[in-house]
Amino acid sequence: MKFELLKTDGAARVARLSTAHGPVDTPAFMPVGTQGSVKSLTPEDLRRTGAQILLANTYHLFLRPGHRLIGELGGLHRFMSWDGPILTDSGGFQVYSLAALGKVSEEGVRFRSHLDGSEHLLTPELSVEIQQALGADIIHPLDECLAHPVHRAETEASQALTLRWAARAKAVHSRGSGRQAMFGIVQGGGYQDVRRRAVEETCALEFDGYAIGGLAVGEPKPLMLDLLELSAALLPKDRPRYLMGVGTPPDLVEAVARGVDLFDCVLPTRNARNGQLFTAHGVLTIKQARYAADPTPPEEGCACYTCRTFSLAYLRHLFVGRELLAYRLLSLHNLHFYLALLADMRAAILRGTFDAFRTRFFERYAVSSLDVSSENLADTEA
Amino acid sequence: MKFELLKTDGAARVARLSTAHGPVDTPAFMPVGTQGSVKSLTPEDLRRTGAQILLANTYHLFLRPGHRLIGELGGLHRFMSWDGPILTDSGGFQVYSLAALGKVSEEGVRFRSHLDGSEHLLTPELSVEIQQALGADIIHPLDECLAHPVHRAETEASQALTLRWAARAKAVHSRGSGRQAMFGIVQGGGYQDVRRRAVEETCALEFDGYAIGGLAVGEPKPLMLDLLELSAALLPKDRPRYLMGVGTPPDLVEAVARGVDLFDCVLPTRNARNGQLFTAHGVLTIKQARYAADPTPPEEGCACYTCRTFSLAYLRHLFVGRELLAYRLLSLHNLHFYLALLADMRAAILRGTFDAFRTRFFERYAVSSLDVSSENLADTEA
Repeated sequence: MKFELLKTDGAARVARLSTAHGPVDTPAFMPVGTQGSVKSLTPEDLRRTGAQILLANTYHLFLRPGHRLIGELGGLHRFMSWDGPILTDSGGFQVYSLAALGKVSEEGVRFRSHLDGSEHLLTPELSVEIQQALGADIIHPLDECLAHPVHRAETEASQALTLRWAARAKAVHSRGSGRQAMFGIVQGGGYQDVRRRAVEETCALEFDGYAIGGLAVGEPKPLMLDLLELSAALLPKDRPRYLMGVGTPPDLVEAVARGVDLFDCVLPTRNARNGQLFTAHGVLTIKQARYAADPTPPEEGCACYTCRTFSLAYLRHLFVGRELLAYRLLSLHNLHFYLALLADMRAAILRGTFDAFRTRFFERYAVSSLDVSSENLADTEA
Repeated sequence: MKFELLKTDGAARVARLSTAHGPVDTPAFMPVGTQGSVKSLTPEDLRRTGAQILLANTYHLFLRPGHRLIGELGGLHRFMSWDGPILTDSGGFQVYSLAALGKVSEEGVRFRSHLDGSEHLLTPELSVEIQQALGADIIHPLDECLAHPVHRAETEASQALTLRWAARAKAVHSRGSGRQAMFGIVQGGGYQDVRRRAVEETCALEFDGYAIGGLAVGEPKPLMLDLLELSAALLPKDRPRYLMGVGTPPDLVEAVARGVDLFDCVLPTRNARNGQLFTAHGVLTIKQARYAADPTPPEEGCACYTCRTFSLAYLRHLFVGRELLAYRLLSLHNLHFYLALLADMRAAILRGTFDAFRTRFFERYAVSSLDVSSENLADTEA
């Protein structure tokens, strides 16, 4: 994997990440394909939204259909017919958020499947083995992700465990094909000094890039941004920085301003299925009666298939009638919006006008309840 | 509307139907867009399956979002962004099959909405008014559709009522824009002589084409084919013949052999959502364990996007995981299969080899339980 920094504007930066399955222009947003499918969309649709890289969930694919099956069928790219880059998480976040039990020991985390209750032990070694069978371009070591708030002593102990797991994961990874990159995950909870040490110790292990985890897990938004700023500033400039599971359009703008390169989040697709559309002016709720006879598209001038082809009145009719097409058309628009937002930010950074872009964005965008909540929507879409 | 007969081969025939929204090559299959959407598919997808004409349901669109709203927004073509021909039914079949009450009088049929229980009176005049607001290219008069079996006296009385309603509908239609064609509906239940008289009396009203209704409503398949053969043979050669709500691939082959030009049925899309794929060899049930590791497509050589892009193993994984994409990919394949079957039949008729085609079709196609049942899947997909 190659990471070529092209331009910085303040802390914001534009780069090109080169993987075995093609390039990614950063800052980039990764649509979430939890079970090996970005819900309701084909690979062809995803290309048309401008997506260059997808995220898939190790936890889900391990449980069903199983990493061995996917490996035997030629890996995840071939299985889901996506020939661009894929990033997988370690499975840890889902074990804590979806599975029962979630009993952490030095060895790993024991859990019961959310599908059938079967018991499994996810170790740092198994997590890498699964991700190797899937064949993702970028993989992650198993980590422990704490909710907020957690006491200092517990946070420090957890970060120390995450670091020991990272070393074990890296040892397995280093015996791999060399075609996969591995990102280290920076945890450290809500304490600036623990985060600082987490960054330093994780970087000492020398990963191909760094994920910032454990943010938007219940902490106030200002603290989240402070912790993010601190973590990003300490990370090496010549490696990609990935903010896990965040967030709303304003979150993305703020994170790019602090030097983040990669994002994933289920908001554009999950909220589409709940009838919410993202626009430059904020969030639009399609079922509202005001759209019943509205002949205009969700967003004037938007180049997505949905906006070029259908009216708010029709989309509302589909959504109210629970037509499957509604989920797809709204997902298409939302992903297009996210990917266009990232493209606009890249263009602004390249022109050296990112500050003006950011100001203009917040002048237009009506911040909603979504932007206040700090639920982490990390990489799980099931 | 123009109907140009190009070639006959036995009773089978190839023609070109010209409507205000473009041509239809017959025999043709119409995907069902009950609520103004062929479930999970865009107009773009439908074009790619080869669809030239769609069916939409008057009953559903009357109840939601309402024909007046669709009329104000420029009609159904613009509302759903389909610029090809559209055929609407009268709403009668759904009133009998979906709505509560369904109390028939000389005036019309009183029913309670399946959505909210609200009471409505659907008259022959209102049915035409709704279809005029929708702006379909081909519309139908309100009829009464009986289940099988029904006593002769009741059948005769019902057919007489259907005929009086047809005359009332035609009177309203004749004051319309002239841009819509109206097909008469031949009923007559399970009695050959009543059917014969139904054809004669309906034809005496001089419609632009003729729909054959009240088949596959519980009668044995041999009786259905006999009644179909009788009806089709008596209908004028220079007008299109439409068999309502039928059927399986073998049904379509048998009906084309008897001179039918137009079909609609929910089987390809509904059964896709239930995990059934139609192939030249019969029906394939995707959730079966035998497909779990199968790297081949549903049908070797099939030109549809699904078969060109995905394996049975992946499709099974999506279906088992209830991924929305499964319903879409299976629907795409099934519609492609139906439309390719019709295209193959047209080609065989044009070459004068329809008999050989029919023999070959039945040699390969494993007739399943679907072909034995005679549930009418007429034009309702909700």
